[in-house]
Amino acid sequence: MSDVYIIGAGETKYGELWNKSLRNLAVEAGLKAIEDAGIYSKDIDAIYGANGLAGTINEQENIGALIADFSGLSNEGIPAIRIEASTASGAAALREAYLSIKSGEYNVVVVGGVEKMTDLHGSDIVNKMSSILDREWEAFYGATPASMAAIIARKYMHDFNVEKEALAMIPVNDHNNASKNPDAQYRNKITVEQALNSTPVADPLNLMDCSPVSDGAAAVVLASEDYVKKNGKDGIRILSSAIAEDYLSVGSRESIYTFNSARLAAEKAFMRSGLKRDDISFIELHDSFSIYALIELEDLGFVEKGHAKDIVYNDIKLDGSLPVNPSGGLKAKGDPYGAVGIGQAVEAYIQLKEKAGERQVKGAKYALLHNMAGTGASSVVHILGI
Amino acid sequence: MSDVYIIGAGETKYGELWNKSLRNLAVEAGLKAIEDAGIYSKDIDAIYGANGLAGTINEQENIGALIADFSGLSNEGIPAIRIEASTASGAAALREAYLSIKSGEYNVVVVGGVEKMTDLHGSDIVNKMSSILDREWEAFYGATPASMAAIIARKYMHDFNVEKEALAMIPVNDHNNASKNPDAQYRNKITVEQALNSTPVADPLNLMDCSPVSDGAAAVVLASEDYVKKNGKDGIRILSSAIAEDYLSVGSRESIYTFNSARLAAEKAFMRSGLKRDDISFIELHDSFSIYALIELEDLGFVEKGHAKDIVYNDIKLDGSLPVNPSGGLKAKGDPYGAVGIGQAVEAYIQLKEKAGERQVKGAKYALLHNMAGTGASSVVHILGI
Repeated sequence: MSDVYIIGAGETKYGELWNKSLRNLAVEAGLKAIEDAGIYSKDIDAIYGANGLAGTINEQENIGALIADFSGLSNEGIPAIRIEASTASGAAALREAYLSIKSGEYNVVVVGGVEKMTDLHGSDIVNKMSSILDREWEAFYGATPASMAAIIARKYMHDFNVEKEALAMIPVNDHNNASKNPDAQYRNKITVEQALNSTPVADPLNLMDCSPVSDGAAAVVLASEDYVKKNGKDGIRILSSAIAEDYLSVGSRESIYTFNSARLAAEKAFMRSGLKRDDISFIELHDSFSIYALIELEDLGFVEKGHAKDIVYNDIKLDGSLPVNPSGGLKAKGDPYGAVGIGQAVEAYIQLKEKAGERQVKGAKYALLHNMAGTGASSVVHILGI
Repeated sequence: MSDVYIIGAGETKYGELWNKSLRNLAVEAGLKAIEDAGIYSKDIDAIYGANGLAGTINEQENIGALIADFSGLSNEGIPAIRIEASTASGAAALREAYLSIKSGEYNVVVVGGVEKMTDLHGSDIVNKMSSILDREWEAFYGATPASMAAIIARKYMHDFNVEKEALAMIPVNDHNNASKNPDAQYRNKITVEQALNSTPVADPLNLMDCSPVSDGAAAVVLASEDYVKKNGKDGIRILSSAIAEDYLSVGSRESIYTFNSARLAAEKAFMRSGLKRDDISFIELHDSFSIYALIELEDLGFVEKGHAKDIVYNDIKLDGSLPVNPSGGLKAKGDPYGAVGIGQAVEAYIQLKEKAGERQVKGAKYALLHNMAGTGASSVVHILGI
């Protein structure tokens, strides 16, 4: 089996990008990645597109073909399909592209993720976003992503005696890192007090506990070992890729603050890579809600259940022992659903190539990326290395 | 690289299934395939779900997780993602599953396709179906799948002097075959006169030229050569799998009655299988509109451009030299978008195992399956054999 490398990466700025359409965003990120990789369209064997909500928000399906068409690549017949795994679509597409190269079928694959969410507002967008939940068993009864996270947070905080301040450390860290990331949606630093006093969204979660609604796109170019060697490319290596599933509806799970999908995916990813938790230089986490970051740090195996509160004050900082979300994370870099998982890979690529400037994690060697669907229904974990 | 086998298949009846939800249909087909394969949940390494429109019709994304959850498989963490390539989602998912086994990552994969379309009616469903077109450049201006097909038909009929009767032979053949298929949506035979005199939909296409709106699901179980040998399974082999792309918007193409995606995908599939057109025992074609069947017979390389009219009267019959759509095709078996490509594989499995009863293609040895996205934006071709 061929090793698989990332040889190029690119992304749009994340934010409220009202002057750019879904296809504009996808192609902008794709072309940046292609240019960065120094390849031509004739080199590309396939395109994998990740998108969560274009069917429901933009009334546009056939996303793979849309992107191929608008980028001018369909002329050459390059296959393009879409991978959908809700908010984990990005990493799921990265994994499919990785498998397609391992299968020997392709040598060079472009993987892009895109989401265009800010054309809708208020209850309209919340309803669309709730299509990542179980529509018939959860959303129909009024559940939203934020309300599900609030239920989970309340139980977690009660059982492990966790203060709201511990949750607030997540957006504080995210905003601090995002202030150094030119592609981030929010580059303002915030204080713990600002986080704690921000508008309540779904008690105990405030505005600063919740990722924003975002537009954005990200793309990477994957290549086989053979291609990398023959063409003298310089890339980072995908050491392992793993995915696992949990119940879609939170009510079916044994514990509402355990993401079994994250547990299983991390176990598999570490086993396949041969690395230990201590080897990881930094993590990009799926912190769509602050509470999820704490739970994920535990379920990914970096700290015991209930003890994330011990490491969120210092260790997760850019110069701490386990830097989390150097990119700014979902809270501050932004949360364009289908783009998130690929955006994490873009950050890993930049960091591992030591091109992250002010937000560079010193001596970064191995990165763990965790992209999650909905409230934990699926988790995809990638471990990348130099 | 491992050879890949289909070791089990199952499908729901196609039709207006108002008493069954999206998840009901998916799980019914999946469990039938699993039972047919004689495997247990512990054997399953991954699930690939195909779906075209649940985001826009059912306000449900996260389809992979939904299916895994409802089938009781998420308890074991079995990964489940959704592949979307519009009306070619089914075959695109089949191909991803095929690649995942070839990559060495999985041994047993369940691939299912599902669509639940008949809860909407009239212009509502036509608008949703139009999300497979280019929303901003086609559908926004009033184009629908049927009107695009009508434009293509008119030009084709004019340039090659083709009568409406030649088009009518497609639904006549489909309905005749479907009358022998218990899973088909329409099991009534129709005459050429009935086809020609049916209600106009988009001139020159009448109701009998257009596939129906359908609910339905289909699933197959794929396994590696290693698994098949170790467990003494009896299956059919996927000899080749290919996918290619064309412009999404028809107006960008050089010729509106040439499906370049079908041409390219068929070329690749034949090259990889080492077979010739003459070796093929029967074809399952993506005849969402009668005109498409004629064009596809040409672009897949079975007859010269403009000459499909020479073979649609006799050769395509069940006992002809090139049987087309023994299942009943999209017109009469039905057209549940995401399920279609997998349903074609179910038919091939039944036929190649000589279990098709009244509609058995005598001595069937090799099947070609063609599943197409929208108006030809993507084509996926599989060649299966015993």
